[in-house]
Amino acid sequence: MPPATLDLSQDVVALTEDLVNIESVSGDEQSIADAVETALRVLHHLEVQRFGHTVVARTDQGRDERVVIAGHLDTVPVNDNLPARRDESRLHGLGACDMKGGVAVALRLAATMPVTNRDVTYLFYDCEEVEAERNGLQLLSRSRPDLLQADFAILMEPSDGVVEAGCQGTLRVDVITRGRRAHSARSWTGVNAIHGAAEVLARLDAYEPRRPVIDGLEYHEGLNAVFISGGVAGNVLPDVCTVSVNHRFAPDRSVDEAHRHVREVFDGYDVELSDAAPAAMPGLSVPAAAAFVEAVGGTANPKFGWTDVARFSGLGIPAVNFGPGDPHLAHRQDEFVPLEQVRTVERQLRGWLETDA
Amino acid sequence: MPPATLDLSQDVVALTEDLVNIESVSGDEQSIADAVETALRVLHHLEVQRFGHTVVARTDQGRDERVVIAGHLDTVPVNDNLPARRDESRLHGLGACDMKGGVAVALRLAATMPVTNRDVTYLFYDCEEVEAERNGLQLLSRSRPDLLQADFAILMEPSDGVVEAGCQGTLRVDVITRGRRAHSARSWTGVNAIHGAAEVLARLDAYEPRRPVIDGLEYHEGLNAVFISGGVAGNVLPDVCTVSVNHRFAPDRSVDEAHRHVREVFDGYDVELSDAAPAAMPGLSVPAAAAFVEAVGGTANPKFGWTDVARFSGLGIPAVNFGPGDPHLAHRQDEFVPLEQVRTVERQLRGWLETDA
Repeated sequence: MPPATLDLSQDVVALTEDLVNIESVSGDEQSIADAVETALRVLHHLEVQRFGHTVVARTDQGRDERVVIAGHLDTVPVNDNLPARRDESRLHGLGACDMKGGVAVALRLAATMPVTNRDVTYLFYDCEEVEAERNGLQLLSRSRPDLLQADFAILMEPSDGVVEAGCQGTLRVDVITRGRRAHSARSWTGVNAIHGAAEVLARLDAYEPRRPVIDGLEYHEGLNAVFISGGVAGNVLPDVCTVSVNHRFAPDRSVDEAHRHVREVFDGYDVELSDAAPAAMPGLSVPAAAAFVEAVGGTANPKFGWTDVARFSGLGIPAVNFGPGDPHLAHRQDEFVPLEQVRTVERQLRGWLETDA
Repeated sequence: MPPATLDLSQDVVALTEDLVNIESVSGDEQSIADAVETALRVLHHLEVQRFGHTVVARTDQGRDERVVIAGHLDTVPVNDNLPARRDESRLHGLGACDMKGGVAVALRLAATMPVTNRDVTYLFYDCEEVEAERNGLQLLSRSRPDLLQADFAILMEPSDGVVEAGCQGTLRVDVITRGRRAHSARSWTGVNAIHGAAEVLARLDAYEPRRPVIDGLEYHEGLNAVFISGGVAGNVLPDVCTVSVNHRFAPDRSVDEAHRHVREVFDGYDVELSDAAPAAMPGLSVPAAAAFVEAVGGTANPKFGWTDVARFSGLGIPAVNFGPGDPHLAHRQDEFVPLEQVRTVERQLRGWLETDA
C-alpha cells in the first residue's frame, strides 16, 4: 500500500472521511501519524516534532498566551465499520465520532491559520484507547512536559459541540468480607462470607453522593458496586466475598482524599485499592478558558467521565473537552458524526483564534 | 489384566484392601462389579441378578421381615492414593472410607450367613459419586422397584460406626435482582442490581433456621448463599445480580413445602429453582429400625448431608446410614478407615442378623 496522504486544504468533512479511512486501531498508528506529520511538515509557520506516533506542531508568534489543541489518532478495534460512509447529514464509520472529526478540525486550523491571536500547540497522539502506560499524551507529559506548557488546553474529544469542563476522578477498591468454609448441610459450623457482605451492600445502597458546585458547574459523584463475586461449590459456605466498588469523585478532592473517604464508608472491612486516576478542576476562571467558553456559545457542562484533560490538569493547565460528535456514540459500532457539527466546531474555534481584522 | 477376583472367606480388613485395589472410579465399575458378581454367584443361598454394573443378591428364607443392605462400588477420581496401604490401625487409600469398608462388611455377611433372622437383599451399585441420572440405585428404583421392597434399609456409607437416621432435603434457588445499566460516571441514570441485592443478603443474614425434633432427633436446617455474581465492566452499573441459595430442610417438609418457604423468605424477588432432592424421614419407630439401633449400640444421630437413604424413603422404606469410616474423610486424598471399626461394624451387623441359637 502506498503511504496515506492527507490534503488539509479540503473541506473539514472530506478531511474527516479521509482520516476515518486510514485504519488506526491503538498500536497501529504508524500510517496515520506519518500522514499527519507529512502534511504538517510542509507548513512553514509550524515547528513539527515527532515522538513515536505522536506529532507536535507549534506556532511561534510570540503571543502572550499559548493554548494546546489536542486529539488522539487511534480508535477502538474495527467492528465491520470501515470504510467511512457519508449520507446527507452524517459521516458514519469507525472513529468518525471518537475522534477523527475533532482531529480534522485541529488539522484544518493548523494548516489554514498561520496567524492566530494566541500561540497554538497542536498535538496528535497515539494509544488513548488502551492502558495508560502506552498513552502518547501521558508519555509526552513525562518526557517533554515543556512541550505541553500552555495557559489552556482543548481536548477535541466528542462533546456534542458543547464545552465540557474538568473531569471527575475515578477510584476502584475491593471491599472484602471473610468467613469460614463449612458444608452447607452443617452451616452452623461455618461463617458465610456472602451473608457478611449484606452490610457492605446496605451502605452502598444508602450512600448519598455529594454534588459540589465548582466554577459554577455541579459535579454529581457516585459510589457503585461494579462487580461482586463469592462462592466455592453448591454445597459449601463461602469463606470470601469480594465487592468491587467504583467511586467517581468531583475535582475538589484529591485521589488521597477520595481514598480516605471510601475507607471511611467501609469502615470495619478490608478495603484494597485497585486503581485510581485524579479528577481535573474545570479551571474556567482562567482568562483564556473564560474567553473560550464565551466564544463557543457561553455554555459549559461538567464532564463526568474521566478523560485526558486530567493529564493537563496534573501539569497545572486548565483543560476542557470540546469537539464534534455525541459522546454516547463513542465506541459504538454505529458511531457517526453530524456533518454540520464538524463544520460548526471548526467555525467556532476559528473565530476564537482569529486576530481582530 | 486378568479379571479381578475376590475371596469372601478372608478377614473383612483384607477384603476391604482387595476392594480398594480394584480401581472403580464412577463410570469404570466393570471390573469390580464382575468380581462381586462372580464371588456371589457361587453361593447357593443367594439369588443373584445383574443390571449394568449393579449387583443384587437376595436370600429367600421366607422370613417375616426383609432388610436391604446396600453400598456403592464407585469412588471419586484417583488422586495419587492407590494402591491401598495398611498400617497398624488404619487402611489408607481411595475408597477405603467411602465406602469399600462398608461394601466389604456387606459382602462378608452375604457370603458367610446363609441363615439370617430376616431375609436380606444385598445391593452393590454404581455411579453414586456422579449425577443422579447415572446412579445405579436410582435406576434400579425406577426399573425394578420390586427388588428394593423391604421393611428397612441400611446404607453402609461411612458414619463412624454410629447410626445416622433420615437425611435433610436440599434445594437450590437463584434469587435475582435486576437494575438498569449505566456508565458509573453517570450512575444516577441507572439502577444498580448489586445494590439491590442488599436486602436479599440481609434476609439471609437474619434468617433463623428451624430445628425440629423428629423421632427424637434434632434436625438443624440452613439457608445459605453459596454463590453470588454480578458485574459487566469496571465502569458500568450492573443490571443483574444473582444470589444462589442452598436450603437444607428437615424431613418434616416436602420439596414443595420447602420451595414455598424459600419463596416466602425472598418475597418480592425473582426466585428460580435450580434443583431439589427430598429429605428422608428417620423412620426409627418402625420395629426393624428400632431393633437395629438397639443392636448396634442404642445411639442414632440425625443425618444432615443428603444421601441415597432418601431414595429408599421415596419408596416408603425407612433407611439409615451405618458404616465404618469418618464421613468427614470421604473424598479426601488421605482417606482411611480404622481397621477395628470395620471389624466392629461387621460384628454388630452379624449379631443383629443372627438367629437365636
